[in-house]
Amino acid sequence: MPRNLTNLLVLGLVAAGPMASIALGGEPMPAEKVVLVIHGGAGPVSKELMTPELETLYRADLDEALKAGHAVLKRGGKGVAAVEAAIKVLEDSPRFNAGKGAVFTHDGRNELDASIMDGGSGKAGAVAGVTTVKNPIAAARAVMDRSKHVMMIAEGADRFAKEQGLEIVDPSYFRTEFRWQELRKALEKEKGRQPQSRRVEATPRDLGTVGAVALDHDGHLAAGTSTGGMTNKRFGRVGDSPIIGAGCFAEDASCAVSATGHGEYFIRHVVSHDIAARVKYKGQSVREAADAVVHGVLTPDAGEGGVIVLDAQGNWSTPYNSEGMYRGTITEDGAVRIAIYEDKNL
Amino acid sequence: MPRNLTNLLVLGLVAAGPMASIALGGEPMPAEKVVLVIHGGAGPVSKELMTPELETLYRADLDEALKAGHAVLKRGGKGVAAVEAAIKVLEDSPRFNAGKGAVFTHDGRNELDASIMDGGSGKAGAVAGVTTVKNPIAAARAVMDRSKHVMMIAEGADRFAKEQGLEIVDPSYFRTEFRWQELRKALEKEKGRQPQSRRVEATPRDLGTVGAVALDHDGHLAAGTSTGGMTNKRFGRVGDSPIIGAGCFAEDASCAVSATGHGEYFIRHVVSHDIAARVKYKGQSVREAADAVVHGVLTPDAGEGGVIVLDAQGNWSTPYNSEGMYRGTITEDGAVRIAIYEDKNL
Repeated sequence: MPRNLTNLLVLGLVAAGPMASIALGGEPMPAEKVVLVIHGGAGPVSKELMTPELETLYRADLDEALKAGHAVLKRGGKGVAAVEAAIKVLEDSPRFNAGKGAVFTHDGRNELDASIMDGGSGKAGAVAGVTTVKNPIAAARAVMDRSKHVMMIAEGADRFAKEQGLEIVDPSYFRTEFRWQELRKALEKEKGRQPQSRRVEATPRDLGTVGAVALDHDGHLAAGTSTGGMTNKRFGRVGDSPIIGAGCFAEDASCAVSATGHGEYFIRHVVSHDIAARVKYKGQSVREAADAVVHGVLTPDAGEGGVIVLDAQGNWSTPYNSEGMYRGTITEDGAVRIAIYEDKNL
Repeated sequence: MPRNLTNLLVLGLVAAGPMASIALGGEPMPAEKVVLVIHGGAGPVSKELMTPELETLYRADLDEALKAGHAVLKRGGKGVAAVEAAIKVLEDSPRFNAGKGAVFTHDGRNELDASIMDGGSGKAGAVAGVTTVKNPIAAARAVMDRSKHVMMIAEGADRFAKEQGLEIVDPSYFRTEFRWQELRKALEKEKGRQPQSRRVEATPRDLGTVGAVALDHDGHLAAGTSTGGMTNKRFGRVGDSPIIGAGCFAEDASCAVSATGHGEYFIRHVVSHDIAARVKYKGQSVREAADAVVHGVLTPDAGEGGVIVLDAQGNWSTPYNSEGMYRGTITEDGAVRIAIYEDKNL
């Protein structure tokens, strides 16, 4: 397999990462005031095909995102502000499937989705199918804070974002050559098939949605998710990321969840709310609930992906059923932990 | 208050309805093979302002929808097919806020949303912001049955519906003079306010979403919901109706739910999935679970609306916290029950 393109998203674990971060596994951590957990997508990130250079770049992005969110939390900022700050860093990086570097639709467009939820107030905001707002997570937050609505889509959402003074870009801003080649390969592959079997498959490596969950100094939870969807998706397809309850959910009384994976399965199983419901109604820990949904519900249904979950006591869990998931945590003291493969419960 | 326009949606109860239907309340019914429950929206349908003529029309619509779905179930058809058949009747009627007769956006457009879910397979389909497909519920079903996706939005969803051979209409098809005047009044009201308080309010009477839940001869549940949203909504706003878990959910192991009301609250509280989760994880009956969410969660948060819920044993409940909710049931033997105000648990 050629290394040049594939490597861009295929990373392995170097024992001593460039950020000197420590991959910790095992039991959920006790609450230590503020906590931020992020992910940069789950998928088949094969160890054999990584390069140290690429891992350095990915780890640097995750580290920067964690520190951006942590800075907000340390100065007493809200969980939703920390979630937005962290996700913006990952949207601005060309290496994740959100904001710049998003995958292409079947028609060669970049259509972006994002959502955010405040576990203290129960308020939420989401945008789907936007094409011109630079940071979709900021648009989701604007819908939450500055409209009476929760969800806005397509051209109307872009127009709202512009009216709110958010940064608007030409749609070409989101384009990266790597993602464009991914689409071309997907279209070539599709062409070789019989017309009646022209079904849209998820390219495993495009499961690079980003997300964050935070616990702030006031004890409030927040969650956010942002994505470019899946390569070769049909014009207008929306996955779980902008769906409150599917790709994102936050409630102080249960937990905050951000999901990444094959969105259709996450919508059908209402993954984020199902985890919260198990915590609330069955008394499960965030780890038990997240494991039950990822390994007990999604895996048997072949729904690939993972979640990051955090409760108001500062316990977190990051299970996934794919080969790897880019993820990291930062706690009150600023200690950063980043992992890609092992340490499933970072 | 002038009766001419307001009356179109403001109905009261005539003791002996024109369909000779009986309003039954009280305990959930035991399972009687197939069951279909429908709603035509919840809102402040004031008894004082109804006319017998209008009630006749509404009851005829509900009766026709129930019989269309029942015919499917009686010949051994699937729950999803019965749900689609019933909802199509209500979409085609100009009297409900779905399909023809949908409310107008702030920009004078009709943007339609719908969703459907099969409780047996767990498959689901949804469309949001469509403007040219005559029956949005049919488009939602086509997304479920004939694509790998669950949700499609805006122009892409309209294009998909057309490719699938669904009936396409000029956007003017959805227009009714009554809804147009509703928008004009809403805009006038908005103009009178300070610019900084130009927030979008739900016009109570536009809570006329339609929906259906069915139990078929194979014991499978299904749910579907269709709406035009809220009068004066911003271009691109999406409510709970097309959101799996919020406005629609079906799972044989718990229940089928279709919701109607002020959508933003139903999204934030993931209403349909929350009811199912209470049934599944807390062992509540559909009545207990639906009451807990409608009266225990939505009412304290000022979230107006209602739900129809049905389980695989044929127990149903139709609670709402508004003045009324158009609703009806039909059972194996073809017995039709229709109610608008009292008999909250029809």
